[in-house]
Amino acid sequence: MTMALIVHKYGGTSMGSTERIRNVAKRVAKWARAGHQMVVVPSAMSGETNRLLGLAKDLAPATQTPASLRELDAIACTGEQVSVGLLALALQSEGMEAVSYSGWQVPVKTNSAYTKARIESIDDARVRADLAAGKVVVITGFQGVDGDNNITTLGRGGSDTSAVAVAAAMKAAECLIYTDVDGVYTTDPRIVPEAKRLSTISFEEMLEMASLGSKVLQIRSVEFAGKYRVPLRVLSSFTNWDIPIEDEAKSGTLITFEEDEKMERALVSGIAFNRDEAKITVVGVPDKPGIAYQILGPVADANIDVDVILQNVSHAGRTDFSFTVNRNDYTRTVELLKTKVVPALGAADVVGDTRICKVSIVGIGMRSHVGVASKMFRCLSEEGINIQMITTSEIKTSVVIDEKYMELAVRALHRAFELDQPAQV
Amino acid sequence: MTMALIVHKYGGTSMGSTERIRNVAKRVAKWARAGHQMVVVPSAMSGETNRLLGLAKDLAPATQTPASLRELDAIACTGEQVSVGLLALALQSEGMEAVSYSGWQVPVKTNSAYTKARIESIDDARVRADLAAGKVVVITGFQGVDGDNNITTLGRGGSDTSAVAVAAAMKAAECLIYTDVDGVYTTDPRIVPEAKRLSTISFEEMLEMASLGSKVLQIRSVEFAGKYRVPLRVLSSFTNWDIPIEDEAKSGTLITFEEDEKMERALVSGIAFNRDEAKITVVGVPDKPGIAYQILGPVADANIDVDVILQNVSHAGRTDFSFTVNRNDYTRTVELLKTKVVPALGAADVVGDTRICKVSIVGIGMRSHVGVASKMFRCLSEEGINIQMITTSEIKTSVVIDEKYMELAVRALHRAFELDQPAQV
Repeated sequence: MTMALIVHKYGGTSMGSTERIRNVAKRVAKWARAGHQMVVVPSAMSGETNRLLGLAKDLAPATQTPASLRELDAIACTGEQVSVGLLALALQSEGMEAVSYSGWQVPVKTNSAYTKARIESIDDARVRADLAAGKVVVITGFQGVDGDNNITTLGRGGSDTSAVAVAAAMKAAECLIYTDVDGVYTTDPRIVPEAKRLSTISFEEMLEMASLGSKVLQIRSVEFAGKYRVPLRVLSSFTNWDIPIEDEAKSGTLITFEEDEKMERALVSGIAFNRDEAKITVVGVPDKPGIAYQILGPVADANIDVDVILQNVSHAGRTDFSFTVNRNDYTRTVELLKTKVVPALGAADVVGDTRICKVSIVGIGMRSHVGVASKMFRCLSEEGINIQMITTSEIKTSVVIDEKYMELAVRALHRAFELDQPAQV
Repeated sequence: MTMALIVHKYGGTSMGSTERIRNVAKRVAKWARAGHQMVVVPSAMSGETNRLLGLAKDLAPATQTPASLRELDAIACTGEQVSVGLLALALQSEGMEAVSYSGWQVPVKTNSAYTKARIESIDDARVRADLAAGKVVVITGFQGVDGDNNITTLGRGGSDTSAVAVAAAMKAAECLIYTDVDGVYTTDPRIVPEAKRLSTISFEEMLEMASLGSKVLQIRSVEFAGKYRVPLRVLSSFTNWDIPIEDEAKSGTLITFEEDEKMERALVSGIAFNRDEAKITVVGVPDKPGIAYQILGPVADANIDVDVILQNVSHAGRTDFSFTVNRNDYTRTVELLKTKVVPALGAADVVGDTRICKVSIVGIGMRSHVGVASKMFRCLSEEGINIQMITTSEIKTSVVIDEKYMELAVRALHRAFELDQPAQV
C-alpha cells in the first residue's frame, strides 16, 4: 500500500479501557508514521452507550415523542465524544499531533430522524486542513447534527456507517474496520465452531450477511461502501499493534466490488441469521390495488423499518399481508395498524409473533445455479423444522422459523452446504 | 414573587442519581406550573467530571499543551451534556415540555482559554422562543464554544457562572443556586460546628467569601451577578421538592446589592479560608520600575491566575516579590519563573511553599471601623500562629499561614468575632 488517506474504525471493545485505547493509539501512530494520512472513528467505550441509555430509560416518559428521542440522542452521543477526546490524548502521548471532532464540529449533517438519522453530507474542509498540517484526526462515530443544530444519532452500530461515510466523503484509499473478530465468517462461530473466515466477500454478499444479522458490520455502512465504492476491510484489533503494516493491511476480510474474482466461489458463502425481528400479519385484507402502500405507508411515516414483506395470492377477494419489523418496534407497529390501518382498510385483524427468527443462505454463486433453495428446504425438513415464511432474492434465500430452532437450522445448513470444509476461499 | 423568568442551578450532588434528578424535575415543574418561565442549568452528576478527567489523565501527555487542554475540555463537557438530557427527559415525564441545549447550541460564546474559558456572549434567541412556546429550557453549565467551534470549559464550579451568565443575558428576575448546603455560613460548619447561616450577605462580602474559599459559589458567578445585578440566592436542594413555593423563595441566603440593609450588620460577617494555593517568592529582584509586570506578565500569558500579590520595601536596591497561585499551577509557575523571568530580571532565586493556607475575615462593616485587623492579628498571636503574609482590602483582611494551623485559626477567629452568637442576622 502506497502512502494514502486511510480511515480506521475501532469498535467499543477495542476502546474498552485506557490500556486498550493506548494500544489503538500505538496502532494508528504506526500507520501515520508509515506516511499515511489518518482519520480515526472510534465507538464509545464498551458498555458506555448502554449505561447512558439505562440512565435515560429510568427517567424518560412512558411514550416516546420526537422531543424525548431528541434527548436520548443528546445523551447517547456523549459516549463517542469521550472516546475521541481520549484517543486524541493517547495519540498526543505517542508524540503525534492529533485533534478530535464531534459530528457537529465536522460537521456531519444528517436528517432529523432522532435515534436513526441518515447522513446527508460531510464537510471535509476542516479535516483536510488538519491532515495537510500533519495531524491525525479523530471523529466521533454514531452521530451528526441536523439543520437546526440538534444532535442526532445513527442507531446502534452507527459508528461503522460514520467511518465509511467519512471514507467516502474524503475518497479514502481504504476503510479498515477494527473489531473483536478477525473477519467475516461463513456463519457465527459461537453457533458453529467449524465456521471459516472468508478472506474476501463480495459487496452484495456482505450486504446480505450484514442485513441478515451477521453482526460484524452495520448494514448501512455496507450500503455506503457499495454506493461510493469504498474498499472496506474487517479485521481484528486484538493482534499485536506492532505487527508489520504489510501483514496487517492484508489480514481480515476484504469486501470486494470486482465480479471476476468470484468465478471459483462456492454457491453459498455463508449462513446468516437474525432474531431481532417480529412477524406481523394483517389478516383478511380486501385485495385491491394499493394495499401494500396503505399498510406500509403509515408504518414508514412512523419511522419503523420493515424487512421481509410477503403478500400471498388472494382467496375470495381477500388476502393476508405479512411483514417483519424489529422487535422493539413490534408493539408500536401492531397498535398503529389496529388503530389506523385496519379500520381504514376494512381488514379482519392483525396478528403477530415475536418468537421468530430468520435464517438465510447467502451466495453470489446462487445467481447462476438452480436447486440451492430447494436444498435448503430439504435440509430444514430433514431436521423437522417448520418454515413460516420464505423470501428470496438473487443471492440469498431466507426463511422465517420458530426462534427455538435457530441454532439447529444454522448448524444443519452450514453442514449441508459444506461451509466447514477447508476448500472455502 | 410574581410570574417571572427564573433560572435554577443544581449542583452535582443534587443531580447525583436518577432518583435525585426526578426530584429536581418535580421542583422545577412546581415553579413552572406556578407560571414562571424556567431555565435550568444543572451540573454533571456528582463524580462524573472526576471520572472523565481520571480517564483523560491516564492517557494525556506528560506536558500540557493547548492541543491537550482542548481534548480535556471536549471530554469533561460531556458530564453536563448527559445531565441536561436526563433532566429534560425527567421533566417530560412530569408532563412538562422540555428541551436541552449544550453550550454550543445556545450558543454560549467564550474565548479559547481551554479549561478556564471566559464567557463572552450568550445568544438567547433560541431559548426565548422555547420559553415563549411554554417549554422549560435546560442548558449545560460549565461550558461554551469558541469562535472556531471548539468546546471550552469554564473551570471547576463553572456551572454557577453559566447559570448567572444565562440569568444576566436573559434579565432573569432571580437566579437560584440549589446546592447541598442551605445557604452561606459565617464559616464552614465542618470546621466550626457553631457557624450560623446568614439570611442575606452583600455582594461584596460574597465576592470575598467566594474568592477566599467558601466553596458555596464560584467566584466568577458572583462577579457576573454583581456586574449585571442578578439577584442571586443560594439554597438547599435537599428540602422536600413540594414545600410551598413562597417558603422556598425565601429560604437560603440572598446576595444583595442594596447598601442600606447593612447598617446594623456586624463588623465581620464571616471567616473564609483556602488551602488550594501555593506561595511563590522571587528573591533579590533589582528594585526598578516595571518589575511587577516583568514577573507577572509571563505568568498571565501562561493563563495562570494569581491571587495575593505582595511586594515589600527594598533593601540595597533589591526587593522580594511574592504572590500565590493555585497549587495545580505551582510547578509550572516556578519553572516558568526560573527559565524565563529570573535570568531576564537578574533576580537571585525563586522559592516557594505549597503547604500554606489563606484565612480571611470578611465584612462590609470593616470599611468604617478601625481595629478589626489588629484584633485578628492578636487572636492568631494568642494561638501561637505565625503569619507569613498579610494583605488587606476595604472589606477583608487575609493572612497566609502554615496550612496545619488552618482549622485552629478559623475556629479561633470565629469565636473572637462572636460569629457563633445568635445575634447574627
